[in-house]
Parts: sequence; structure tokens; C-alpha cells
Amino acid sequence: MNKKLIYQFSSTKTEGDKSMLDLLGGKGANLAEMSILGINVPPGFTVTTEVCNYFIENKSFPDKFDSELEKALADLEKITKKKFNDDTTPLLLSVRSGGKVSMPGMMDSILNIGINDKNVDALASNFNDERFALDSYRRLIQMYGNVVLEIDMDRFEAIIDNKKRIDGVEKENDFDSEQLSWIIDAFKTTVERFAGNPFPQDPVIQLKGAIEAVFKSWLNKRAVTYRKINNIPDNWGTGTTIQSMVFGNLNESSGTGVAFTRFPSTGKNKLYGEYLMNAQGEDVVAGIRTPFPIGKHEKNTQPSLEEENPVLFNEIKSIGDKLETHYKDVQDIEFTIEDGELFILQTRNAKRTAQASVKIAVDMHNEKILSKQEAINMIDADQITSVLHPQFVDSDSKKLFEKGLNASPGAAVGEIVFDPEKAEIEAARGKKVILVRDETSPEDISGMFASVGILTTKGGMTSHAAVVARGMGKPCIVGAENLKIDKNDRKISNGHITVEEGDLISLDGSTGEIFLGEVELESAKLTDEFNTLMTWCDDFKKLLIRANAETINDTAKSLEFGADGIGLCRTEHMFFEGERILPMREMIMANNKQGRKRALNKIIDFQINDFVEIFKLLKDKPITVRLLDPPMHEFLPKSDIEISELANSLRVSSAYVSEVLSRISESNPMLGHRGVRLGLSYPEIYKMQVEAIYKASYEIYQKEKIMIKPEIMIPLIMNASEFTKMKKIITKKIESLKKESDFNFQYSIGTMIELPSAALNSSEIGEHADFFSYGTNDLTQTTLGLSRDDASKFLNEYVEKNIFDVDPFISIDENTVGNLVASSVVAGKKVNKDIKIGVCGEHAGDPKSIKFLNTLDIDYISCSPFRIPTARLAAAQAEISKT
Amino acid sequence: MNKKLIYQFSSTKTEGDKSMLDLLGGKGANLAEMSILGINVPPGFTVTTEVCNYFIENKSFPDKFDSELEKALADLEKITKKKFNDDTTPLLLSVRSGGKVSMPGMMDSILNIGINDKNVDALASNFNDERFALDSYRRLIQMYGNVVLEIDMDRFEAIIDNKKRIDGVEKENDFDSEQLSWIIDAFKTTVERFAGNPFPQDPVIQLKGAIEAVFKSWLNKRAVTYRKINNIPDNWGTGTTIQSMVFGNLNESSGTGVAFTRFPSTGKNKLYGEYLMNAQGEDVVAGIRTPFPIGKHEKNTQPSLEEENPVLFNEIKSIGDKLETHYKDVQDIEFTIEDGELFILQTRNAKRTAQASVKIAVDMHNEKILSKQEAINMIDADQITSVLHPQFVDSDSKKLFEKGLNASPGAAVGEIVFDPEKAEIEAARGKKVILVRDETSPEDISGMFASVGILTTKGGMTSHAAVVARGMGKPCIVGAENLKIDKNDRKISNGHITVEEGDLISLDGSTGEIFLGEVELESAKLTDEFNTLMTWCDDFKKLLIRANAETINDTAKSLEFGADGIGLCRTEHMFFEGERILPMREMIMANNKQGRKRALNKIIDFQINDFVEIFKLLKDKPITVRLLDPPMHEFLPKSDIEISELANSLRVSSAYVSEVLSRISESNPMLGHRGVRLGLSYPEIYKMQVEAIYKASYEIYQKEKIMIKPEIMIPLIMNASEFTKMKKIITKKIESLKKESDFNFQYSIGTMIELPSAALNSSEIGEHADFFSYGTNDLTQTTLGLSRDDASKFLNEYVEKNIFDVDPFISIDENTVGNLVASSVVAGKKVNKDIKIGVCGEHAGDPKSIKFLNTLDIDYISCSPFRIPTARLAAAQAEISKT
Repeated sequence: MNKKLIYQFSSTKTEGDKSMLDLLGGKGANLAEMSILGINVPPGFTVTTEVCNYFIENKSFPDKFDSELEKALADLEKITKKKFNDDTTPLLLSVRSGGKVSMPGMMDSILNIGINDKNVDALASNFNDERFALDSYRRLIQMYGNVVLEIDMDRFEAIIDNKKRIDGVEKENDFDSEQLSWIIDAFKTTVERFAGNPFPQDPVIQLKGAIEAVFKSWLNKRAVTYRKINNIPDNWGTGTTIQSMVFGNLNESSGTGVAFTRFPSTGKNKLYGEYLMNAQGEDVVAGIRTPFPIGKHEKNTQPSLEEENPVLFNEIKSIGDKLETHYKDVQDIEFTIEDGELFILQTRNAKRTAQASVKIAVDMHNEKILSKQEAINMIDADQITSVLHPQFVDSDSKKLFEKGLNASPGAAVGEIVFDPEKAEIEAARGKKVILVRDETSPEDISGMFASVGILTTKGGMTSHAAVVARGMGKPCIVGAENLKIDKNDRKISNGHITVEEGDLISLDGSTGEIFLGEVELESAKLTDEFNTLMTWCDDFKKLLIRANAETINDTAKSLEFGADGIGLCRTEHMFFEGERILPMREMIMANNKQGRKRALNKIIDFQINDFVEIFKLLKDKPITVRLLDPPMHEFLPKSDIEISELANSLRVSSAYVSEVLSRISESNPMLGHRGVRLGLSYPEIYKMQVEAIYKASYEIYQKEKIMIKPEIMIPLIMNASEFTKMKKIITKKIESLKKESDFNFQYSIGTMIELPSAALNSSEIGEHADFFSYGTNDLTQTTLGLSRDDASKFLNEYVEKNIFDVDPFISIDENTVGNLVASSVVAGKKVNKDIKIGVCGEHAGDPKSIKFLNTLDIDYISCSPFRIPTARLAAAQAEISKT
Repeated sequence: MNKKLIYQFSSTKTEGDKSMLDLLGGKGANLAEMSILGINVPPGFTVTTEVCNYFIENKSFPDKFDSELEKALADLEKITKKKFNDDTTPLLLSVRSGGKVSMPGMMDSILNIGINDKNVDALASNFNDERFALDSYRRLIQMYGNVVLEIDMDRFEAIIDNKKRIDGVEKENDFDSEQLSWIIDAFKTTVERFAGNPFPQDPVIQLKGAIEAVFKSWLNKRAVTYRKINNIPDNWGTGTTIQSMVFGNLNESSGTGVAFTRFPSTGKNKLYGEYLMNAQGEDVVAGIRTPFPIGKHEKNTQPSLEEENPVLFNEIKSIGDKLETHYKDVQDIEFTIEDGELFILQTRNAKRTAQASVKIAVDMHNEKILSKQEAINMIDADQITSVLHPQFVDSDSKKLFEKGLNASPGAAVGEIVFDPEKAEIEAARGKKVILVRDETSPEDISGMFASVGILTTKGGMTSHAAVVARGMGKPCIVGAENLKIDKNDRKISNGHITVEEGDLISLDGSTGEIFLGEVELESAKLTDEFNTLMTWCDDFKKLLIRANAETINDTAKSLEFGADGIGLCRTEHMFFEGERILPMREMIMANNKQGRKRALNKIIDFQINDFVEIFKLLKDKPITVRLLDPPMHEFLPKSDIEISELANSLRVSSAYVSEVLSRISESNPMLGHRGVRLGLSYPEIYKMQVEAIYKASYEIYQKEKIMIKPEIMIPLIMNASEFTKMKKIITKKIESLKKESDFNFQYSIGTMIELPSAALNSSEIGEHADFFSYGTNDLTQTTLGLSRDDASKFLNEYVEKNIFDVDPFISIDENTVGNLVASSVVAGKKVNKDIKIGVCGEHAGDPKSIKFLNTLDIDYISCSPFRIPTARLAAAQAEISKT
């Protein structure tokens, strides 16, 4: 802690800039940057994130802190020409938290720090408004009492409500000075009673108490949950910004608001936002009063600032443009107007929907603000999948229930729940739920995360629910004010129609429409901007992107999303469905080769047809077909009823079926008799499969003149000897088929590298294999000794304890699994320079993993269809980040 | 196949020597060597193993074979002054197989090749013995018909038996010429009828047919089984030796026998063996006639050669001594006397019991034949464990059933079975069986392997049963001639006592005694020679040898066998027994920390006492204590009855117990919630365990002034962060205990490296760990993706198919698991030069693995108590082989 602890910003002296995000947090760094840019920012200073971390570790401030604070206050007094802790021209301060990234659950702000019994009169005379001074003091005691002294907010609100009732006052703003003085006294009594000490009169004690409260809020449960969900390290800490107060609640020429430089839901290039006159910031954000719109929009139901006060609107707009060009990103700006003067309190890169992020990136390139690379880098590759999510069909049968604000796009169908706790419980049971609340608060984060969609009856587009839902990529409708929730009877009504908890509703977050029951979904329509962006990505990326697909639907979807082929066609999935499972079971139940062959003969035509349909779609694109992989018992029935049904249909006894089941059951099926091990025990299975591949290729060649060159993949190889044994059997079968039908079938044979031993034997295997495909899911299981099915019991705990930065099934564990893949690639290429190399585990759709994989000498990655745009984008970003 | 195909040997021209084992097989190489040494060997030549392999691959002889054979025959004719395929002085030949190692199941020999209708008279006049010539011809047709033409031996024996009965002849030797001529005609008719062609009259066709039969016998089922059991590669092939005949069956001055230069059962330095006058070799080996002893022994019941013919005895003895000194090993010699002249037909290193091998090695060093290194290398490290096996107690209550020959030492208790097939079936069901037969044959190999002991009523010390049992290290008694087996009624009787199939008997292979019922066993008494040998090993070996032990018995046993400490004390084993399992189950059933702590409090005293007892035995020797490792459900009941018992004793409902069971059940427990993962989820468990270690150390220090410095091992570590988290918890607990009791407890904390990820993270983990111990069992499971519990389904098949040379759970898979261990050791030592390194998997008791491990920079290996002498020996051999 030898470094500087406090950084000042003002029009005359600024010590930080926007590059110092880590040290000052987003708020502090951007206030410094704006001060440098000459934007009208109330002067102040920022306490570094390192002080926060020091405080958390040591439960005290660092040694030099008091002296640096004293110096910063003295400088601020000079600039503002006011005095902190003075009875004539009191300097009032706000204290706000601000981490490297914005985080719900953190303390937002305490305003009006510095008022006490002695200087409240001076404040009144300085502003020439006694009521304002007393109201500010009242707000300070209330906020401080709640946030710093941890007194329940209800205690303060009860006093106000009582006073309203007794004196017949309708709104808080209507209290006169006398009434406010009475309230202040009552608040002070409450503080003393519940905190054990009087409300602190020393402004420095008030200030330090507020700073401590910011630090402590870093550790509160909601903040911790949010960090866990969003992979934010605990050791980042938060910055704390202390700023001289400006007052949006001073008079009717004052106000406060939030503006986005573009529309965060669609990306439309139009200043957008909400404001309230004669109000302080929290009134807008908290969603208590529904605010007025800033820009003129068709959907507005109230007059906009653009119409009401075009001068002020243009002032905000020109600052927004300046900041957007400067930051090369859409800005989310907080502003306050004090007696007609505009102050900017904060700017940050705006959260936006995936749809918006694509449009904004492409537009900003076309507007020459961004290069193509910058446009690509601007988009969160993980988030982009949501543009592919299905939307509701356009049909007359949809029954509209209500409309609200379209806060976060996408379609969600689920059962109504009214409590976040219940949302978590039902979701854990596998149900899809929609959380319905008057408004959400940071306590609700886990429940929101568990829901498929969120609906609130209050609040605007910048309310808590709206901001958080957009961040999570979940459909959200807010401010559906006609709806009344009856929490006692567990139902919700618009006056005409009533639905109950557990009933299905459908939310269209893009239009704000709420439908009754389940509305049918259809695929997303991809925008021109999306297609443009993807083409740019293809120009920059080095890796080819294939899909893991084995159905016609998935194949078609993959090609639509730009797949360069199929990297993993899991043939066993073809046997699970409907009538196919029976011959599969018959094969397993057979106790000799003849019986197995008889059963396989019933399966082969299904398999040929599946391949023909897929090949037809693929045309000249490559496909890797993996031969049967899972252990046999995955195909077998589990319950007694199913067992006796199977026995009946095969005309054997239930006892026989049970005996086979118990014979083939395994203590650790993941490490058991599966993959090539089955292929070697029962070669007739793989022979049937290559026959199907061959015949499908022949058929499609005859019918469509498409020459498919399938890549046949042998799973679960341990060493070269095992691979060559199986390769020989397959090759022999194919060669005999070729002799029969005189078709110049072209194919290659390779293997899945999914065991540490295969990775370690890559030199030997590579000599015989035409390709390697890394099955990083299974490789993670064996390398780390983690069963994917069982590990959830403790894996979350492990991520919380930082034993893993991220769940190793989500992002590849680079030191171990990554290391094995990397050295295996080198070994394989060394012995076989033409070997084709791919990765087909789930990691192939994860941006962090793709960045790692892009450093290796591999040809393609293969992921699930809906991750393909993510992979294309992440592969381009990975390549761009190299240069 | 450009190389020489045939190698000659004779007193005048010898082309091979003993170094050419691979090419000529043991028999061929040693006949060549003896020819060089001037020992009287019938001249001949050997067809190489490469010809055998070529024949197996191509089903034909190589091109040059016929011309080389012609040349070798011509040279042999010159030396013997006889003519093959000649009607005046016919040259007769024997054909024998002989691989690199001797192998039951291979064709033994075909004698008298070269006789036909035309030259049988000349043979008679040359030997002046018509009966002998005809008997030799009869034997040729019979053997050739059976072995080469594959006609059932019963068909020939039926003819002889018929003739005996019709003519009233008692023994085969009593047939006169006329009777033999009749038999020859009948044999020829039989051959023509069943082989489809007449018996070949061309000696060259006879010879080539016999050579082919040798080649084919390499592939027969018994030979393949034997190779599999003994890890002999299929591609070694067999040599084929063709030798001019000498006749043990010529007259009463002729004979044949087998001699061992030392007693193969005890190692006593005394010429030992068996012989029969007027007989051919197979009469001795097959056990049909019980032969006479060669050396004079107390136990002889018949006069020995030493007494009957001391000149011949001394001649054999001096050749034996010469060969033993030359080969530096005990020899097993086959000889034939033809009309008073001694010929040696074969010499090879004698098979012997483990006890004998130790005594022989030590004696031969003391006799200055071997250096210490040579003596150590002479012993099969795998086999030596059998000297440690328990023996029957000396008690009056033992009920002797019968006595036989002490063919292979050791004590066996098992149920009687009469068929090898049944032995296999019962053994597979987990029963211990003793195979009882009149005599065994190569078909019985699998059944012998499945049995714990073997008893035959016929045959001598060199019979098939005796030789094979010694090779397998199984107790065996042969020639118990008073016993009659009644296969129909499934019983066996000595005339007085009758026991039935399924009854228990006890065999003492060291004394030849057969007891009724189950006789109590006691530990082996270690001989002086054994202790001497082990001391020599300790002088040469570099590795320390520790034991895997957690009971008092095992600890005591380990120390007796020379362990340098305990390398793996598996604490969970302490919780499975008797009354301890209940609090363990109570802990698992508890649904909160308090409940778990309460249960753990009931366990801690047991654990402390266990440690105290073990520490007392260990004194200053080190111990590695592994904290709880297996998944919880291993401790829980499985059956409904057990579940309801547990529920009763814990006063909870059965439904609750079942619910906990289903909650903690896992699809792949090997990759599940176990080891340190449990330790981190429920820190109170490991805290209890280190408290027990601490308190036991304190107690033993106070009582005995022994300062134990336990090495505390954390299992199943994946990465450094996980290790340091757990280490911190343990250290904190210990430090707080130290504060309480003012005892200068010394300890270290390390980890088991048993996951590929741990091996790959060794640099990071090594910085924090005091030691690494490689758990190569689990490391094999995850590296190769093989569950030890499930893999047996296909692992045998994999070894047969040469996908693995050896089961990777027996010998470490060097390319993969070995590779991970090797690089981990380097990484660990690099960051922490003082790190202690051990290996505690089963591989630590396997000689092949020890040889590999000895190449690494490790400190100790730790194996099960009974493998300690093997490990000491193998570690010495590994170090000797380096120089």
C-alpha cells in the first residue's frame, strides 16, 4: 500500500483517466476522463479499489488514508469555494461505489453527506430555500441510517406514512418546513434508538462511514452472487467516488435522468432515456415514479424532453455524441440539472441486448467510428447466441393479456411464480418459470437467474429488472401498470382477466406483449447486420467452424448459422428414437453374433436414410461420423414395467432381461465398456455402421451426384494398437463393399482424442490416423477425475473457492486439459503433417476456450448449432487479439 | 527370409550356440552349445523360429527351405554314416519343438522318423533285434498318426488293448515280432481309413509332416492359453530340432531319464531325477510308469541309480556339474542310454520352487559359481512371494488322508473338483478348489490355473502336473497311488476313507501330505538363505521399500519382511470394521455440521488407538497417513434389511436413509465426490483425522519416547489451489492443537498424485507439498479411462489382442501413466529439490514396473506387505541391470 490512495478530478486538477479502470473503477475513471474532456462534471475524488481490498483484508483503512483524504477535501473546498464541516457555506458530498464493471447489489449512493444540525440553516439561506435544506437533511439521515447504520428502511417510511396520515399530506414533496423538522427529529430518535448512538454530526465521520459502507457492500450476498454468475473475481474490489453534490431536487428548473446514446434494446441510433424534474437520481432508477421519455419516439405516451425542452435535449445529445466517439461505444449517461445547469454524473458503456449490440457495431463501423476489428471486438461472443433464439409465431390465435415496456427482447413461455425463492425451487425441479413482481431488487438476483422471463408491474426501461434482465439475456417486460398482483390469493389480474400462480403465460420481450397460455415459437430471423458481421468475422478468423449435429433439423440450422460442415455426428442419437430403440435393445439382448446381426439388419435402413438426408443438405461440406460410443446399458429400460414390456416384445423372460441388465451394468460406466471397446468386442456393430455410411454415400452420389467424403471417427481410443486393429476391420469391410458395387467411395478414418492416454500416445496414433478430433468434455472428465453427472455436487463450491476460475466443463482448463491437447497436436502434426485436427467438445462454443484453441495448430472447432455464431465471432476476436 | 534357415550341430560341425535362444529355441541352442562343449549329443540340426513364423503367416515353407534341409540331411548322413531314405543302413530321426522358453501344450516329439516298410528289416538286422525294429515302427505310426495326422489316440490304443486281450499278453513290451507285425498292419489300415491316405512311406514326407506339426502346435489352444498366462508373445515362434535317434528302448542296457543338478523343490545340492531302463523318453515324462530315482535320498522307496550303477551315476553327475558351472544355473537334463552309452538329449535351466531358487542362488554364490549380482538376478522376483505364503500349523488334530510326492511346495485348502472345467467355473464363483486327477495334460492348464492346489494319483516329480504347478507356484502333490478316483460317483477313496467332490481337503505340497478338512495355517518361517539374499539386495538397491498397511498385523508383517516404513496407511479401512461402521454411518446421515461432529467424536478414539499401536511398532520408521478417500456411499448399507437396521439404530425412518442413499449415489463414483473433495465439503472429517494423528503421536511420545513424524497425505488433488486450501485447514488445526498441549509435533503434508491433472500441475503443487506419492492404480484408471471394476469384461481380450502387452493394472503403462509420473517427478523436484517422492500403487510390487520406476528420481516405493521381498529383489535387479 505504498501507492496513491485517492485520485482527484475537476476542471482544474485531474489525476486519473479512463485507462485506470482497475484502480478507480468505471465510475471514477470515467469522471476523470470527462473532466479532462471539459465536460461539466461536479468535482470530486475517487478512493482506489486497492483501499477497498486493504479494508476487506484488515478491517481498517491504510495508514496514509486520513492524510490523503484531508488533502483531497481541502482541494475540493478550494475548487467549490465551499467548506466541508462549516456552518456558513457547507460543502455537501455524494458517495458512490463503482467497480471495474457495474454490479447490481452493490451500494449505489449516499447523497447530501455533510449536513448537520448546525449548518442546515446556512444551507437554507445559501439556496434560499428552507424546505429544500430540511428535505435534504431528512434524506441524508434516512439513507445513512439505512445503508451505513443498517436500520430497516421500514422504520423511516413508517414515520413518514404516519405523518402523512396525521397531517393529511398526500406526497412527500408536499411537507412544509415545520413538518420536515418534525420528521428530522423523529428520524434522529430512531437512529439513536436502533443504532445505539446519535446520528453523527461530524461530516468527516459521516463521510468515512459512507466509504466503509461502500466497501462492505462488496461482500454482501447479492454482490457475491452476481460476481459468481458473471465470473467476476472477488479480488477486483470497488472504487469509491466522492463528489460535490448537485441538486436535481432544488426546484422545478432542476431534475435528473439517464440517457442512452442509442436504443439499448434494438440499437437504433437515437438518443433515448428517461428523466424526472425536481427529483434526485434514485427516484428514476428505483422505478418509484414512472419517468418521462427524453427522445421523441412513436411509442411514447408522454411528452418527451426533445419536445418540451429542445435546448436541453440538444445539450445532452451533443455531449452524448462526443462521449460515444471518444469511447468508441454507446454510452449510458447519468445527468442532473441544477437550476437549469446540466451536470454529467456518470458515463459508461451501455448494456444492450445482443440484437442491439450487432446493429450498433455494424452501424458504428459504417459511421466510421469503428474499424471492422473494433466492431467485431465490441460484441460479447457469449451473448450473441440470444439473437438466434426463437420468437413467437405471428398468429391470430394468440390471446393478449396485457402490454408493458419491452425491456429485454426474446420470447419466454413459463409458469407464473411470484417469489424469487419459489422461482429457484421450481427451476431446480426442471420447470420453466416466469417471475412476476411489482418491481425487482438486488435480493431477487438468484430468482431472476432461475427464471426464463421477468415481468414487473412498475418501473421503466432503466429499472433494476430491465437492466439486470438485459445483462442476463433474458426476456423482460416492465411497467405493466394495469396489472395488479394479489400475493395472498396468488393471482394476477388486469381487471377483466385473472390468472393464477402456476398458470402458463408467454412474454414477448421485443414488443412488450404478454400472452395467455403457451404461444408457439418459430426460429429467429437473422438481420442484415448480423449477416454482415458474420461475414466480417469469416474474413478475420483462421479456424473453420463446424457443427455437432445428427438430425436433419440441426444440420439445416447449422448451415443457416454458417457452419463449414459437421464435426461430430453422434450416430447413437439415431438409435434412441421411437421404433429404433427396439432392435437396438434386441441386439443387446442377443447372446450371440447371429442374434446381434439379425437385430442390426433391422437398424441399418434407418441409419442409411438418416445419412442420406444429412448428406443431401451438406452437399460439398465435410462430415465427421462418430461410430457408436455410449455403453450398452444406456439403451436399456430401467423400470420394472419397461423391462417386462421389452421381455414381451422379444419373447424372453423378464428374468432374462434383468440378468442381461445386471451383467452389463457397470460401477463407472464413463470408464467402462463403450466406444471402440464395444466396437472390438462386437465388430458387427461398427461394420453395420460403415456399411450404412457407404450405402448412403453411394445413394446420394447416384441420385444427386454429390460425392461425400465422410470422415469416420473411432471413439475412446487409448493407443495406436487399438486404433489400427479397429481401422483394419473397418477398412476391410469398406473394401469388400467397394468390390461389390464398383463405387469409388472416398473416406478417411481418424479418432476422437478424449482420454489422457490417447493424447500421450499421439505420435504413435498420428501415424495411422487421418484426423484427430479432441473430445474435450470426456478429456476433462478423465484428466480432472470429474464425472460431469456427479460433479455439480461440489463444482460450484470449487468455483466459489477459486479452486477453478471457471467451471472446467465451461472453459477448458488450460494447464491440464489444454496442455494435453496442445502437446498432442504438436505430436500428431510432427508424424503426420497432413493430419486434420479439430475440437468437438462443448468448449468449442466457449469464447475463452476458443481464444486458447486458436493459439494451436488446428483446422476447425465443432460446436452445437446455436453456438456457431459465437464460435465464428470468438474465433475472429481470438485472431484479431493476436495482432 | 534371406537368413539361414537351418543350423547344424555335431561333434564335427556346429553352427549355433547358447546365445541364439531367439532363433533356435532353448533346445536347439543348448544342443549346439553342448556339442561345442564336447558333450555326447546325438548329431542333428535345428530349423529356426523364423521358419515357424513364416509358416504360420504363409501356410508354406520359405523358398530355400527344401535345399537347406537336403544339405543338412546329407551332412548328417556323412557324420552318422547312415542314410535317410535308404534300405540298408537307415538313419532314424526325432523331431522336437523347442521355443525360447519351455512351454507345455507344445508338441513334445515324434520319434523314429525314417522307418518304412522297406527298411524295417534292415533296421532289424543292423540292431540284430527284429522285435525292437518292429516296435519302433509301431511307435512311429502311432505317434505320427496321432500328432501329424490328428487321428484320435484311442483308436491306436484300442487295437493294442484288443490284441493284448485276444492273445493274453500283459504288457506292451511282451509282444513278439509276429504280434507287432499284426499291430503295424492294423495301424496302417487305421491311418488310411481316418486320414484318407496311407501312412507315408517316404521318410522326407514323414520328416516335413512332423516339422509342420511342430509349427501348428504353436497355435493350439493350450499353447495359446499358456502364453497368455505367462505373458509370452505370440510372435516368438518355436524352433524345431531334428536329431539322429538313440534308443533307450533297445535292450536292458538301455534306458532314459531326466536329472536335475539340484533338488528343484528345496534347492538341496544333490543330483536328483528319475529314470527307466528299456524305455523311451515319453514313458518317464508322461507318468505312465512310475520311474526309479537317480540319486540316493532318504525318502526313496526304490533303489537309486547311484546305488545300482554308480559309474553311470557319476558320469551323469560330472556332466551335470560341468553344465551347471557353464550355464551358471541349475540344469534340467534329459538323457538316453543306448546299449550302455550315455547321450544327452537336452539341457535347460531347471524350473524350481521359490524356496529352492533362493537356496540355489545363495549356495551358488557361496560355491563361487555366481557373483552376488548374478545370484540376485537369477531369482524371479514375481515368484519369490510364495516363500512367504502360510504353512499348516503343526498340530495333532490334523487328520492325514494320504501321502504323495511333494511336487510343488506350499499349503492349499480347497474343495475337491475332478474336472478342470468345473475348477474354472467354481473359481469364477469365488470358491477355492483343489483339482484332483489321475494325471494332468496340457488341456487342463486353465483349470489348474483356476485351482489353489493340484493333486494327482499318478506320475512323478517331473510329470506334467508337477512341472506346471511349480511354474505356477501352486502347491502340488503327485503320484498318490493309493487313491482311487470314482468319476461316476464323484468321490475319491484310499480304501478306508472316502471323500466326495465338494468336500474340503488340505494339501501340504512341501511334505506331500493330504489332510481331511481344513487345516489351520500359520505364517511362513523365513530361511537364513532368504534373509541373506535380502541383505544382498539391500546393498545393491537404490529405492527404499515401504508397505501399504493400516492394521497392526500388516504393519508387523511388513516390518518382518524388511519394510523401511509405511508408505500408505489408508485410514478409511479403519472405519469399516465392526462397531466403527455405525458412527461412520451416523456421520454420513447427519444433515448438519453438529451432527457430523457428534458422530466423529465417537470415531476419534478408535482412530487414535489404531495409530498408537502402529506407531509403537514403527518406532523411528516413517509413515504416510492418507486422509479419508472413498466416496461416502461405500460406507453405507445396500440391502433393504441393512437399511432398516441402520434406520432403527439411528432412530430415523428407513425412507430418510434411502433418501440420503439416493442423494449421495453417483453415476461414476470413481470420478465423484471423494478424497479431498469430501475433505473440503466437510472439513470436520479431516480435522478429526489430524487430531487423531496428533494425539496418537503425543501419546506414543509420552509413553515410549518415540517421536513419530507423520507424513499427512491429502488424496485426489487436482491442482495447487485445492491442495493449499486443504493444507491451510489442516495446518491451522494442528497449530491450535500444539498450542493446547505444548508438544513439539513434527509433521509434513503432501499429496497423492493420482489424477492426470495433478501430474500436469506438479510444478505448482510441488511448491507447496512436502511429498508426492503416486497412486498409480487410480492414475491408470483415469489416464486410460479404465474402471478397474468394469474393465475385466474386455481387458483380457485386449491383452490377447496385444493392445496391451500386459494388463496395465499389473505393469505400469510406460508410454502414458509412466510418462505422466516421469514428467511429474521432474517438475516436482525442479521447484522443490527436497520433495520426497514415492509410489504407492500396486505397481510398486511388480518387477517390470519397478524396473521402470527405478529409472526415475524417486525415494521409495510402497506395496502390500507380501510384495515387499519382491520389491526389494526387483529394486536390486533394476539397479544391477543399469550397470
